Amino acid sequence: MSDNPILVIGGGPAGLAAAKGIADLGRKAVLVEKEEYLGGTPIKEKYAALTPDFRDAEEAMGEMIKAVTDDGNVEVITNSTVTSVEGSAGNMKVSVQNGGSGKTIDVSSVIVSTGFDHFDPGEETQVYGYYEYDDVITLTDAEKMLKEHKFVKPSSGEAPESVCFIQCVGSRDRQIGNQWCSKVCCGIASKDAMEIKQILPDAKVFVFYIDLRAYGCWEDDLYWKAQEEYKVNYIKGIVTEITKQGDKLIVKGEDTTMGRPMEIPMDVVVLSTGMEPSEGTKEMAGVFNLPLESHGYIGTIGGPLNTVETSVPGVFVAGASTGPADLEDSVSMGGNAAMKACAFAMKN
Amino acid sequence: MSDNPILVIGGGPAGLAAAKGIADLGRKAVLVEKEEYLGGTPIKEKYAALTPDFRDAEEAMGEMIKAVTDDGNVEVITNSTVTSVEGSAGNMKVSVQNGGSGKTIDVSSVIVSTGFDHFDPGEETQVYGYYEYDDVITLTDAEKMLKEHKFVKPSSGEAPESVCFIQCVGSRDRQIGNQWCSKVCCGIASKDAMEIKQILPDAKVFVFYIDLRAYGCWEDDLYWKAQEEYKVNYIKGIVTEITKQGDKLIVKGEDTTMGRPMEIPMDVVVLSTGMEPSEGTKEMAGVFNLPLESHGYIGTIGGPLNTVETSVPGVFVAGASTGPADLEDSVSMGGNAAMKACAFAMKN
Repeated sequence: MSDNPILVIGGGPAGLAAAKGIADLGRKAVLVEKEEYLGGTPIKEKYAALTPDFRDAEEAMGEMIKAVTDDGNVEVITNSTVTSVEGSAGNMKVSVQNGGSGKTIDVSSVIVSTGFDHFDPGEETQVYGYYEYDDVITLTDAEKMLKEHKFVKPSSGEAPESVCFIQCVGSRDRQIGNQWCSKVCCGIASKDAMEIKQILPDAKVFVFYIDLRAYGCWEDDLYWKAQEEYKVNYIKGIVTEITKQGDKLIVKGEDTTMGRPMEIPMDVVVLSTGMEPSEGTKEMAGVFNLPLESHGYIGTIGGPLNTVETSVPGVFVAGASTGPADLEDSVSMGGNAAMKACAFAMKN
Repeated sequence: MSDNPILVIGGGPAGLAAAKGIADLGRKAVLVEKEEYLGGTPIKEKYAALTPDFRDAEEAMGEMIKAVTDDGNVEVITNSTVTSVEGSAGNMKVSVQNGGSGKTIDVSSVIVSTGFDHFDPGEETQVYGYYEYDDVITLTDAEKMLKEHKFVKPSSGEAPESVCFIQCVGSRDRQIGNQWCSKVCCGIASKDAMEIKQILPDAKVFVFYIDLRAYGCWEDDLYWKAQEEYKVNYIKGIVTEITKQGDKLIVKGEDTTMGRPMEIPMDVVVLSTGMEPSEGTKEMAGVFNLPLESHGYIGTIGGPLNTVETSVPGVFVAGASTGPADLEDSVSMGGNAAMKACAFAMKN
């Protein structure tokens, strides 16, 4: 049995759930975060509200963060990254780098919860004009405005009359190499569409989608609600090009349900950019020698019956570092990884 | 701190993950299962292979079961149900009924993992003729055949030339009151379609869907693979009626992409029946006084940031008793609930 603390890398929803779980089981955790703050993507990207419950993201994540920082069993080290590891199962010596200074920590087991990065819509889908037109924004740009309880045309600061979301930007796309569905964007776009209608009840809001993947209870909690209570228009269609005419964006493509081409003027276009393995996820895969699965996320063993164990003994993984994950996935995996990492430490 | 064992109710994937997790943390678990065997729905309904990894379901679940039954920290009680509870947080007296005899167990905390039942396609969607036509079957009927490495027309025992799946039977349907998406059926139908093509390479296989919800890495691992490697045909369409003509079933409806009515003869029609809260889930909600969420599943507190805690102290929940869940969801929640239930027992 190792009494060394358990290392959690990454302080987003999965890592926070893991660190708190370890502490609740009476063990010491060390949480290393590369940013100067905890909270992960919901805080970094300034999410307005959580999906699907519309709770204020900063408030909800703040509670999770406080539960960790208030717990004497958790040592939080921000502005830091893990750069190397020596030793193995039960007694690993991990180097943690903070700016110019570094230190070595003895740990019993490790949880990698380094999450995802958003796809950069300029990289390979410049057809949507993200870097060309001010009024083409991303889901996270939209979240930042909604967090300020406003939604405007960036080019003019005026209220838009028409807004559309384009789903699957950087997802389900062999051309750019991202063959996966990013899982959460249909739900998040539906939530954002409702928040826009709350602020601008007269705006026309459209969602262009391939398949509207509001799985589970997101079906009526988000998708039906957006249509019935907020009059959001969902159009199954492929957008192939965005151009500009005067101060309007022209969205061109095909309405596949109507089987006809479409060309619709819009004031604001929101690109629902998907998930990719984060830089931190790729780096930690390298440091801990973790095999990747076929999409480039960290691979787990045991198929669907073992969600957090890697092929390296004592190294567990949680959240979107394993593939596209919603908040529930990340939090459940964080707790599961806490259990597995503690059980591992007891036996090694 | 209570040294009483932790009670796990239901021995499917979530309950097995929970019981093993508790044992791995060095605590005693009592696993109560109403059937005479463990394994839950994958075993009860004779699933052929797991989604998405195609692993033999009996073998994979068998390993999970063995890990629990071989563990000295877990007492397994089959053929039994929990009928009442007295006391509260940290020291609950639970009555367990086995046929005519009963006993009382002192437990420190409880995990409810009583899962789902499949929607009965005869109940309110008799339009599909499940109880009328032998060759209209359900996903689970298909799984039973595939488990025997065969796929035939039930009416004749012959190999079908054409097979179709109809998605969202008992899901996404306000008429019958099931407003949720059952989450897993698009993936399972895609898997089954591929297994049918493995057995019958010349059969034409169709999937009629509303939205093809192959979220995350199911996108290419299942949906693209089915189309590209197995030539499964996906048709966005609504089936409104099934009739019989000679020895063929006539599937009538609308191809919404082509925007025209369709009337296609089929040898076998597979209804992708969705999830409903199981009888056991409803019973345990009653016994433990657990509030239900709006769809009739057991409600959790804390929105997406707390997936297994209920409003009753010391009673946790995991898997499809909380809503539609895939295997990953169930296993992650099982492990998370094990952690939370152990932490609760340490403090109470």
